[in-house]
Amino acid sequence: MTIQSFHPPKRTLMGPGPSDVYPRITEALSRPTIGHLDPEFVRMMDEVKELLQYAFRTSNALTLPISAPGSAGMEACFVNLVEPGDKVIVCTNGVFGGRMKENVERAGGEPVIVQGEWGRAVDVAEVEKTLQAHPDSKILAFVHAETSTGARSDAEALCRLAREHNCLTIVDAVTSLGGSELEVDGWGIDAIYSGTQKCLSCVPGISPVSFSEKAVEKISSRKHKVQSWFLDMNLIMGYWGKGTKRAYHHTAPVNAMYAFHEALVILQEEGIENAWARHKLHHNALAKGLEAMGLELVVPEGERLSQLNAVKIPDGVDDAQVRSELLSKYNLEIGAGLGNLAGKVWRIGLMGCSANQTNVLSCLGALQAVLGSDKNGAVAALEFYHSQG
Amino acid sequence: MTIQSFHPPKRTLMGPGPSDVYPRITEALSRPTIGHLDPEFVRMMDEVKELLQYAFRTSNALTLPISAPGSAGMEACFVNLVEPGDKVIVCTNGVFGGRMKENVERAGGEPVIVQGEWGRAVDVAEVEKTLQAHPDSKILAFVHAETSTGARSDAEALCRLAREHNCLTIVDAVTSLGGSELEVDGWGIDAIYSGTQKCLSCVPGISPVSFSEKAVEKISSRKHKVQSWFLDMNLIMGYWGKGTKRAYHHTAPVNAMYAFHEALVILQEEGIENAWARHKLHHNALAKGLEAMGLELVVPEGERLSQLNAVKIPDGVDDAQVRSELLSKYNLEIGAGLGNLAGKVWRIGLMGCSANQTNVLSCLGALQAVLGSDKNGAVAALEFYHSQG
Repeated sequence: MTIQSFHPPKRTLMGPGPSDVYPRITEALSRPTIGHLDPEFVRMMDEVKELLQYAFRTSNALTLPISAPGSAGMEACFVNLVEPGDKVIVCTNGVFGGRMKENVERAGGEPVIVQGEWGRAVDVAEVEKTLQAHPDSKILAFVHAETSTGARSDAEALCRLAREHNCLTIVDAVTSLGGSELEVDGWGIDAIYSGTQKCLSCVPGISPVSFSEKAVEKISSRKHKVQSWFLDMNLIMGYWGKGTKRAYHHTAPVNAMYAFHEALVILQEEGIENAWARHKLHHNALAKGLEAMGLELVVPEGERLSQLNAVKIPDGVDDAQVRSELLSKYNLEIGAGLGNLAGKVWRIGLMGCSANQTNVLSCLGALQAVLGSDKNGAVAALEFYHSQG
Repeated sequence: MTIQSFHPPKRTLMGPGPSDVYPRITEALSRPTIGHLDPEFVRMMDEVKELLQYAFRTSNALTLPISAPGSAGMEACFVNLVEPGDKVIVCTNGVFGGRMKENVERAGGEPVIVQGEWGRAVDVAEVEKTLQAHPDSKILAFVHAETSTGARSDAEALCRLAREHNCLTIVDAVTSLGGSELEVDGWGIDAIYSGTQKCLSCVPGISPVSFSEKAVEKISSRKHKVQSWFLDMNLIMGYWGKGTKRAYHHTAPVNAMYAFHEALVILQEEGIENAWARHKLHHNALAKGLEAMGLELVVPEGERLSQLNAVKIPDGVDDAQVRSELLSKYNLEIGAGLGNLAGKVWRIGLMGCSANQTNVLSCLGALQAVLGSDKNGAVAALEFYHSQG
């Protein structure tokens, strides 16, 4: 057995994440490793918290990155907030809502499902009915930006409803953070988790989370210990808390934190509203191009995410063949459908630094070539860009 | 608020981990990110599994890296193998044995503690008595290399005992993998977890694990679902399984996997027995030097780890002051004591590429200077090196 060093090909990442990574971030990643209790590292952690509060638009003290991917961030929210027997209303309109249900069950909670349509926003009226029918519910959980379908739900309205019914909210913002309007304090979100590898254009592996004061109160007054030691926020608070005295909990992924810090510095430099607007601009251009090619988006206008575009696969077209050719001939990754939409859609991501004019035009060009179409989507997109000045 | 990019100082890492990272590894870390379902990434994952089997000395099919730090690897072993009501014998001779107990309890198991002395190996005779007194035990759990004390336990003897009493074994090898003899198949270990940031000299954030066939059998025939979705090996097997068809589970930390792959390639190039011997050589040199300076190791000879040296802090010496001066004047990190040994010991790590002659000599020199001692440990260590030819 002799295995050699691995040298990955250079791809353009326009799937559901990871997205293309800013060169500044991979450079930061390779800076010298220091100890996770080094005073310099601790100082950097404080900056990460502050930058993350900016990104989440919150003043929540308990705002920090979990040292594991988004799925662990999801689990951190559920195992800390759900106690055995708690009734939790879970909105499922895609894969990640279904995963929330799994999390509730494994934490000993009792899920009440609001079954939504795949490719549509969560139905606010349905949620209201369910809250009325289950007045003993403790938590409302939903996905803000469904990565499996590209639908954006009205988080503000859902959080308002939850408050009116004395429920805490758990919000999946894996794909929305940095790419769509998201207001943790403004909308009154109680627990939120996200990922680094979507609209922040950072490498995957970290999950930022934030908890409101009401959520922290529930966590600190639990009757049962949090079932996960690794994700117990009562312990993690000791490591990420204020001041220079940090209780050792686990060894932080030091270099990944450098990268995440850099991603947040870049976001701060651009300005978060500008980042939202940029995602929107390139989404609109892509949508024009797809339309010109006769391709259809799954999600109706008004409920669409800018950063994740689920495109219906035309009849008679071989899903896997197209994706494989895009990858092999153009080094372009787009995503396959997931769950109910497997084989039926492609998912084109415009996330973080992947959301740019070059990517939009080259993706449309590559799609046209691979589909053997005579309809030029790139020209339509370019006209749209020109119309925007 | 304007926060700038973070530029860490260049340290020499001789604490309990992270250790110094091979430059080849930080370079690998910064290679272009590709998708976690890209065929090239899947091929690399297969290589990681194969290299990890080499490092663990096992042919276990279920050998893979968990996408989170060592604490999550520990939790993965416990939540998958412990079912509610299971009696688990836990040997505690340091901080990490205590953490095992927490894990058993949170998984609904019933821990039976074999309380050992801090700074000593696990007492095999005590364990045998406990196994006899609790014939209904399902699992024996112990730490092979106690990072909090520097003691190495006789994993081979403990596993033999466990087998004789029909117990599975869970072994913490966070600090031993790559630095001390470790034979997963040879010793019959059923579940093992480790870290990347110790004797493999990789960046922190990943936890390699391996499960025997007997362990896999127990996991697949559980009556209760694994309480953690993120760490459920039944689901993770679908992603890391054989063949090119992978079920999406979570987004792997792609760049961290490049780094881990490179760390394992480096280990393969050196040869694992050579790596063990190198750790031993530099440990012996360090021990000679410390002895010449009148400093004492906590652990008796024969039970010492090469890679983690707990040194008693001499009377009248200010613990924090010494570590702080080593850091500020020499950019040298050594570790503080943990748990019962806090304030009583320093922990000097010789892990991975930190285990080299330059580090040993400069650490001894810096210690002498900061302690204001006239006893030259570096000369004694150098004489030892010369005696070894």
